[in-house]
Amino acid sequence: MTRRKRVVSVVGATGLVGSEIVRQLLRQHFPLASLLLFASPNSQIQKVPLAGKWVEVKPFKLDLLRRSEICFLAAGGAFSRRYARRIASLGNVVIDNSSAFRMHHDVPLVVPEVNPQDLSWHRGLIANPNCSTIQMVVALAPLHRKWHLRRIVVATYQAVSGAGTRAVAELTIQTSAILEGNEVRSRVFPHQIGFNVIPHIDDFDSSGWTREESKMLNETRKILDDNEIEVIATTARVPVFRGHSEAIYAEFEKEITPDEARCELRSAPGVIVMDDFRRNVYPTPVLCSGKEGTYVGRIRAVPGSKCGICMWVVSDNILKGAALNAVQIAQHLIRSHA
Amino acid sequence: MTRRKRVVSVVGATGLVGSEIVRQLLRQHFPLASLLLFASPNSQIQKVPLAGKWVEVKPFKLDLLRRSEICFLAAGGAFSRRYARRIASLGNVVIDNSSAFRMHHDVPLVVPEVNPQDLSWHRGLIANPNCSTIQMVVALAPLHRKWHLRRIVVATYQAVSGAGTRAVAELTIQTSAILEGNEVRSRVFPHQIGFNVIPHIDDFDSSGWTREESKMLNETRKILDDNEIEVIATTARVPVFRGHSEAIYAEFEKEITPDEARCELRSAPGVIVMDDFRRNVYPTPVLCSGKEGTYVGRIRAVPGSKCGICMWVVSDNILKGAALNAVQIAQHLIRSHA
Repeated sequence: MTRRKRVVSVVGATGLVGSEIVRQLLRQHFPLASLLLFASPNSQIQKVPLAGKWVEVKPFKLDLLRRSEICFLAAGGAFSRRYARRIASLGNVVIDNSSAFRMHHDVPLVVPEVNPQDLSWHRGLIANPNCSTIQMVVALAPLHRKWHLRRIVVATYQAVSGAGTRAVAELTIQTSAILEGNEVRSRVFPHQIGFNVIPHIDDFDSSGWTREESKMLNETRKILDDNEIEVIATTARVPVFRGHSEAIYAEFEKEITPDEARCELRSAPGVIVMDDFRRNVYPTPVLCSGKEGTYVGRIRAVPGSKCGICMWVVSDNILKGAALNAVQIAQHLIRSHA
Repeated sequence: MTRRKRVVSVVGATGLVGSEIVRQLLRQHFPLASLLLFASPNSQIQKVPLAGKWVEVKPFKLDLLRRSEICFLAAGGAFSRRYARRIASLGNVVIDNSSAFRMHHDVPLVVPEVNPQDLSWHRGLIANPNCSTIQMVVALAPLHRKWHLRRIVVATYQAVSGAGTRAVAELTIQTSAILEGNEVRSRVFPHQIGFNVIPHIDDFDSSGWTREESKMLNETRKILDDNEIEVIATTARVPVFRGHSEAIYAEFEKEITPDEARCELRSAPGVIVMDDFRRNVYPTPVLCSGKEGTYVGRIRAVPGSKCGICMWVVSDNILKGAALNAVQIAQHLIRSHA
């Protein structure tokens, strides 16, 4: 592909991630010839405001994707499983935000700061990784290159927006109800999320791990192209609107100090070191919400483990964790690949 | 001591922990000859409702403690450092909820289910451990005895009530303000806590660890009487009123399976196994708030580590994490020691 303008489509354009993809395409000055927006196949025609104009969001029909060159899918796993390859076969490069194809051997799973080289072997379908995985690998890949990761123990503090607009509404409604002394009903989450923590994201497998936790293991291995890295994850939902936080303990093959890690991370793409504990400076979801970077703080040595360090990593799960990473994949494609 | 009734005093009786100690003394049917309640030295006389009567809370004066036999201190570290030993020298057994004496060699640090034997060597002063440490050792000590703990990597999700009544008010006020679109001010916490996560509890030391994190290492070693156990902790505050959660990865000397761990924990004192992921059963702060037990769920094997398991541990930080544990210490004393 060259720098000429492209016809771009977004399916799921009224959702939390889809609408953010549209915003990011404009914000990042993506060279758009035209932008086709679609909602689910059974939806009504809607109009959404876009750069001062009202733009139509049509119900999805495969045939309407013939004109499109790059297609972003943000309509869920079932939709992607059904349509992603068919959209690709119409001549689109499909960038899929769902988990449907992430572990397929013929589908690159890409974080542009980490493994842009994997874009070279795509066959029309590229997977956008899981939000929790993206920010973790952005923060750890620069250290992995130099010190070689062996093991990660991570606990996540994930925002409700990762579960979509209905989840955001549920946190708001429950929180108001609790403050007013009213009863709480849970429809989106399996338990009350208002003023609570739920250690359960996505489904459980038969051994009691959640798919969200397994994703952090499997996707990290695929992105870093290293099947020996251990990732022991506990993923939990917290009553936060936007911004995932991660408490990470990382163990490397070689000895590492916090100063060395900080120095390496300061020049790492996409990483912002926010680490001055003496002045209470470290990232929090509220500080990092709406920001593009992956923020790293609380980098500290582990007594008794010269090869281990701890850190606290926060990023906006809808931006770098989803929409921004997808748009960055497309930017890389048009910059460097045919 | 025998089973005769005691004169008991509580200093800090109007605080979150102090008032809960009073409630627990009544609820656990502690044999009270009389109950003397004190607030800070400069306070006014207040009256609080107690078992249907109004009871006076007096400003603290050392001299008024002469009649008391067992004294609970819940008035902060500075107060304890100044008065704990002097109250003990008046003939009281002092049970101190602050961190002031926890690591002193002549002061037992006791979780009655775990190390009741340490009550035998007290010299008038007994320390109540940190909330996060208590629930972690209640859940891990039974496994430690059989499989021998080597290392714990833990991330906490701590409720605001651990920081006192003003912190509870701050979460309520900030949450309302945010829902109404108003500005947020932080007075108790270093950053906004409403819909946020703050990876910072207690002060930082010079190496970037918080004292809360160091407590989890040092207190665990003292309670389990094993200075080789490694505890790598990240402690974070979440917008939850009551109930601390902990994502724990524990590594043992011997091979352990989730079934073996569950079986051992089912008969462990103070532990309630709440672990049936197929039916979305696992502990959350809302479920465990107001309950006496330490709840353990999401017990799972770690691929690639036969000696490691993960678990999710939740307990009410004001009950087992503070007031209840303190009252249980007193109950043990009058049951078993002279």
